[in-house]
Amino acid sequence: MSALYLDANASMPPVPAARAAALAALDVVGNPSSPHALGRAARCLLDEARDAVATALGAQAREVVFCSGASEANRWLVDAAVRAGRTIWCSPLEHPSLAKPAALVPAPLRAARPEDADVVCCTAAHNETGVVPELTELLARVRSDAVVCVDAAQACGRLPPLPGRVDAVVASAHKMGGIAGAGALVLRGRARALPAPWAGGGQEGGLRPGTEPLCAIAAFGAAARAVASTRAAHAALAPLRDRLERALVAAWGGRVLGADRPRLPNTSALVVPDVDGAALRIAIDLAGVCVGFGAACSALAPEPSPALLSLGLTPAEAQATVRLSLAPGQDGAMVDEALARLAPVVAALRTAGKRP
Amino acid sequence: MSALYLDANASMPPVPAARAAALAALDVVGNPSSPHALGRAARCLLDEARDAVATALGAQAREVVFCSGASEANRWLVDAAVRAGRTIWCSPLEHPSLAKPAALVPAPLRAARPEDADVVCCTAAHNETGVVPELTELLARVRSDAVVCVDAAQACGRLPPLPGRVDAVVASAHKMGGIAGAGALVLRGRARALPAPWAGGGQEGGLRPGTEPLCAIAAFGAAARAVASTRAAHAALAPLRDRLERALVAAWGGRVLGADRPRLPNTSALVVPDVDGAALRIAIDLAGVCVGFGAACSALAPEPSPALLSLGLTPAEAQATVRLSLAPGQDGAMVDEALARLAPVVAALRTAGKRP
Repeated sequence: MSALYLDANASMPPVPAARAAALAALDVVGNPSSPHALGRAARCLLDEARDAVATALGAQAREVVFCSGASEANRWLVDAAVRAGRTIWCSPLEHPSLAKPAALVPAPLRAARPEDADVVCCTAAHNETGVVPELTELLARVRSDAVVCVDAAQACGRLPPLPGRVDAVVASAHKMGGIAGAGALVLRGRARALPAPWAGGGQEGGLRPGTEPLCAIAAFGAAARAVASTRAAHAALAPLRDRLERALVAAWGGRVLGADRPRLPNTSALVVPDVDGAALRIAIDLAGVCVGFGAACSALAPEPSPALLSLGLTPAEAQATVRLSLAPGQDGAMVDEALARLAPVVAALRTAGKRP
Repeated sequence: MSALYLDANASMPPVPAARAAALAALDVVGNPSSPHALGRAARCLLDEARDAVATALGAQAREVVFCSGASEANRWLVDAAVRAGRTIWCSPLEHPSLAKPAALVPAPLRAARPEDADVVCCTAAHNETGVVPELTELLARVRSDAVVCVDAAQACGRLPPLPGRVDAVVASAHKMGGIAGAGALVLRGRARALPAPWAGGGQEGGLRPGTEPLCAIAAFGAAARAVASTRAAHAALAPLRDRLERALVAAWGGRVLGADRPRLPNTSALVVPDVDGAALRIAIDLAGVCVGFGAACSALAPEPSPALLSLGLTPAEAQATVRLSLAPGQDGAMVDEALARLAPVVAALRTAGKRP
């Protein structure tokens, strides 16, 4: 029985063009920072990818800073805010890569409300539930001089570009159809005044030290060029996702988080009642389906997700929340097979739990 | 005329096994932090790579922290020392990715001598000259409780593993036969007490946030498995390198930096007299040879290399220092062709400079 993959929010399979671009980049010798012919050839690839990523994110090429991924870009923003001595506010739905550095910010730099903050961070789409926060409402509340930062890791391959008022955009290659190891930090508008928090080699305009990962960046560029079709494919997943979650709620009981709010079209978070989260995780895995529990990077941590707690769940509910996330190309037959495997799981667990 | 690549210290072409491993990893779906079947399959690849990299570096697998590259690993060490409030000393030959963060360390945490430092940093091989510092002498001078950190980015694919007294080892995948986008930070002995300086997702034992770049790490693992033959191939380059530098000194005048000291077998740094560094850079590029000037990441910077100044060069000499670095597989015929292209360059520049 081959495993069914319903965990695209943890890592999306690369689009074919990204795979091909990574492959081609393997043959490029030369460091993009070297000013000789082969360095310039490598730099060319980097520039092409930068143009494509900028276009996909609704930005200018000169605003794109390549880095190792969204986690690094999120930490960059927190470190830059702290270095500038500016107050910061984060939504409760942020990914751990932003929420954890933000929690370590010195108390005088923490703002209680977005209205009071110099730097305002809000995810474009919550990784665990797919909930898309009301960015327009938030933008109306922030100060006109506030730097607005949006982590679009889950949104960049699924939703249209963000409005221009967003000063910093974080994107992840492997959540947009590329491969892991590259990300982008768009710095524009008010974000251009943030100081570079990290010193090192002069790469990326002095903003991010380290040799650029050419292979992953080339794949990122190719994924960016294909992003319109990736976004369309995601939009087409909504009816499948709806069918999946309706059938599972019928089989398992429980409820869907954020069902009454705008959500990513591929994501469903189900709070499953009367089961132990750890047992559920194992049972679903044994049934041959790959799903998410919390952020992938924290999936092995025993603590319930702070973001789910902020939505009003109890710790037990947060730990028994199953995230299903579909990838482009998945179809009704796959959903049927997933349902056949998943539907019996919870009843079996409950029966086992009641065994004397 | 195709360009001849004599800039392996900026980026070494990947070994065939690394290319193949990267290719295979492109087909691995799943985030290595996800606890389901496809996540575990990805984790398997990561663990295999970790074993191989550990062996290549003379370390244990549990001591290896994967990261985006040597630059990130160097900054990690400086940030960890600062976070722990420990004094730090760096050799004058450090790469900018270590030297620049170290230069920003608060004054009370800067030690004037290695004897006084809590954390001692010394490169295993200087990227610009290939000079291999006398580590044994340094180790005899440091305090017994000092954390000794060695940036082995240039050494890991060329020299044997470092002695066990070295507590932290930094390695770069694309300077060992892998591809850019992965690096390793070995933390053992006294370095285990350093605090994790960066918060985020719980990857790499909580020490380095961010989804692991599986493709680059798989290539790193394959390069590590091939490291014995890579090191042997480098040792075999010494006679070629010697011939190249002798012929160029004969043609250009000048001298070889560190010729009387232990050096990497593939590297030669020539101080070329009576020419302008910027003009020399362009002339060599036009002659169809790719060489290094300073660290690749800083090659576009107008300042002379601080490391070369520390060796006693004037700013003009530092800027007219050409780094030739050979890669495994390069042969006598390539060296002959490089000499044919390079030998006339300097005389032509000097003649042009004297034109009225």
